[in-house]
Amino acid sequence: MVFDERLNYFIQKYNGLIKRKNSVQEGGNGIYDKYIYPVITKDHTPLFWRYDLDRNTNPYLMERLGVNCAFNPGAIELNGKIYLVVRIEGNDRKSFFAVAESESGIDNFTFWDYPVVMPETKNPDINIYDMRLVKHEDGWIYGLFCTERKDPEAACGDTFSAVAACGIARTKDLKLWERLPDLKTASPQQRNVVLHPEFIKGKYALYTRPQDGFIEIGKGGGIGFGYTDSMENAVIYEEILMECKEYHTIKEVKNGQGPTPLKTEKGWLHIAHGVRNTAAGLRYVVYAFLSDLEHPEIVTHRPGGFLIAPEGEERIGDVSNVVFCNGVVARQNGDVLIYYASSDTRCHVASTTIDKLLDYVINTPEDPLRSYACVQQRIDLISRNLRLIKNNTVSV
Amino acid sequence: MVFDERLNYFIQKYNGLIKRKNSVQEGGNGIYDKYIYPVITKDHTPLFWRYDLDRNTNPYLMERLGVNCAFNPGAIELNGKIYLVVRIEGNDRKSFFAVAESESGIDNFTFWDYPVVMPETKNPDINIYDMRLVKHEDGWIYGLFCTERKDPEAACGDTFSAVAACGIARTKDLKLWERLPDLKTASPQQRNVVLHPEFIKGKYALYTRPQDGFIEIGKGGGIGFGYTDSMENAVIYEEILMECKEYHTIKEVKNGQGPTPLKTEKGWLHIAHGVRNTAAGLRYVVYAFLSDLEHPEIVTHRPGGFLIAPEGEERIGDVSNVVFCNGVVARQNGDVLIYYASSDTRCHVASTTIDKLLDYVINTPEDPLRSYACVQQRIDLISRNLRLIKNNTVSV
Repeated sequence: MVFDERLNYFIQKYNGLIKRKNSVQEGGNGIYDKYIYPVITKDHTPLFWRYDLDRNTNPYLMERLGVNCAFNPGAIELNGKIYLVVRIEGNDRKSFFAVAESESGIDNFTFWDYPVVMPETKNPDINIYDMRLVKHEDGWIYGLFCTERKDPEAACGDTFSAVAACGIARTKDLKLWERLPDLKTASPQQRNVVLHPEFIKGKYALYTRPQDGFIEIGKGGGIGFGYTDSMENAVIYEEILMECKEYHTIKEVKNGQGPTPLKTEKGWLHIAHGVRNTAAGLRYVVYAFLSDLEHPEIVTHRPGGFLIAPEGEERIGDVSNVVFCNGVVARQNGDVLIYYASSDTRCHVASTTIDKLLDYVINTPEDPLRSYACVQQRIDLISRNLRLIKNNTVSV
Repeated sequence: MVFDERLNYFIQKYNGLIKRKNSVQEGGNGIYDKYIYPVITKDHTPLFWRYDLDRNTNPYLMERLGVNCAFNPGAIELNGKIYLVVRIEGNDRKSFFAVAESESGIDNFTFWDYPVVMPETKNPDINIYDMRLVKHEDGWIYGLFCTERKDPEAACGDTFSAVAACGIARTKDLKLWERLPDLKTASPQQRNVVLHPEFIKGKYALYTRPQDGFIEIGKGGGIGFGYTDSMENAVIYEEILMECKEYHTIKEVKNGQGPTPLKTEKGWLHIAHGVRNTAAGLRYVVYAFLSDLEHPEIVTHRPGGFLIAPEGEERIGDVSNVVFCNGVVARQNGDVLIYYASSDTRCHVASTTIDKLLDYVINTPEDPLRSYACVQQRIDLISRNLRLIKNNTVSV
């Protein structure tokens, strides 16, 4: 009785959620549209992932293996469908990957029956998360992700110090994953490592984010770039810094590459994240930049400030004041779907086009890095606008 | 087409916002009234500050120079109008000042066409914010504010350590600002410096907040007080501590003077902020105290606890769990408008009177500093009330 009542209730709720149409939020900034609903939440995971559906062993229809959040998805388009490799976090705080698919890319995402079985390395991962998916021109789909293990040098009683490294796996179908050895670099910790989609001079190119401590970036200064001869035994002997963190900006404390960059006529379009400190903890925003087609490590355009910041309900979650993006899809027709998560809890989409993003990165002025110069920049804009208004070219 | 549609939409939204009437929130505490709408948000900034309105250069009508927040205003009444010097933060995280005016002081705030051009000192400000406005009896309007510059002694790779100092400027009209040299004191860092409105023994008097580190207060213990002979070369040789931070109070971690104090028959009415630590970061509340008319550095009344704490939507923003006040206006008729910002994101007003604030600071018992004594304090109140109820003097 309880069992059936509850089951019917949950089935209806689940079906309503999966079939729900999404629509654009009014009053966007013209650069992209946000949507009124998140595209994936923990409630999008199938009931049979969470409940024991045997009425004999679970008469109260209790949740047996809760799902706490569904966030930070890698994204890819295959045969016209959008696939997200979502970071699922159980109530036990361990993350794993699961594939959800959708025709539209903005609603009706449905998880496959089983989560991804990611083979372990010899030194087992304790936690894996934040996959960057890339269709490389070598023919494989690569998933690069963060793997964490307890710091073997942690002091007695220190149950939280960890080592973050870049895990690497490849697949043809997102189902069967071949695990490759973790990336080796000179940095004690690596997060936010991303594979460039093309060979450069016959080598694989990787965006990295060297850092000294598990949370503290230390002397690690931003997004790095390096080459490896092989992905089967990936080693970067030399990393150069291509996009640095900087005092009193949205990337003051740290930054990192988001998804693999998008190829455009005018250069490689990068989506990244920037982190600053506040009296209430770190604040993560998403920003963008453009780099040279031939030399993707040379940044050509740096629009000032953030592209996406947490707004409204996005501000709150397990780790509040965070938006993060590690998945983007550019469709054939020029449409771009930016998948971003809010506050380490749920996934959203922002839709735009290659055209608009190029307009944004090329025509948004660079951060002049001090208050007076920012005011001058704004006064330039205001006086041009007031001239247009005075001439009746535009009326406000 | 896109351009005109979007422009019309935004013009309507903007006009609706600027013309919107504000009204009192029901169920206030009797000390002050809060209002249902904030008085200034980022959306109150003119469209021509944010959008390039040229349809040729901006066909999608994209935001070119976003405004992220509008908060922590200084406040002043001039010729019967209320002027706020608002801290505007661009998407690039740099703050600057802009003037907004209103007849009522509770709604219809409109920004002037151009933000304030605050001249730089020789060592340029990187960020300026939180202006305290005061009409001094020397005839000038002073704006004291915080100026931040990168710490020249920051270690390699440290992109965030900064030095905070008190910037000083004066004006007659809020339009043309004369920048004076920064305040010199013995403290390595200064924030929340406020000019007393009157000369004391022929000298300028300043409230200060000495601290050791950029965030850490260190041995700096509270609101300081000192004198300078001149504002054109302001130097405080000696600071005394007049209002200390204190263990297990709302000002356990730090505190600071808000706006310049209000002169009343019974003393100088101070609005200040107190900060405590939590597992989710710092929590800022606003509190009040009264000091001696002749000796404004001698506090005579310390009502226990906070005057204003974040509630409802105020709790959430770029830096959550914060209310902060650096602007207040006392009108001729005794009305008081307290401008406070919430969570480093938007500005609100709380309205009250000099009478009510004096009643509050004089009749609210002082914090007895330990749980048992707080219970005794409350039992006194309860038993007096129960006697009144029993005697039918009052019925509840």
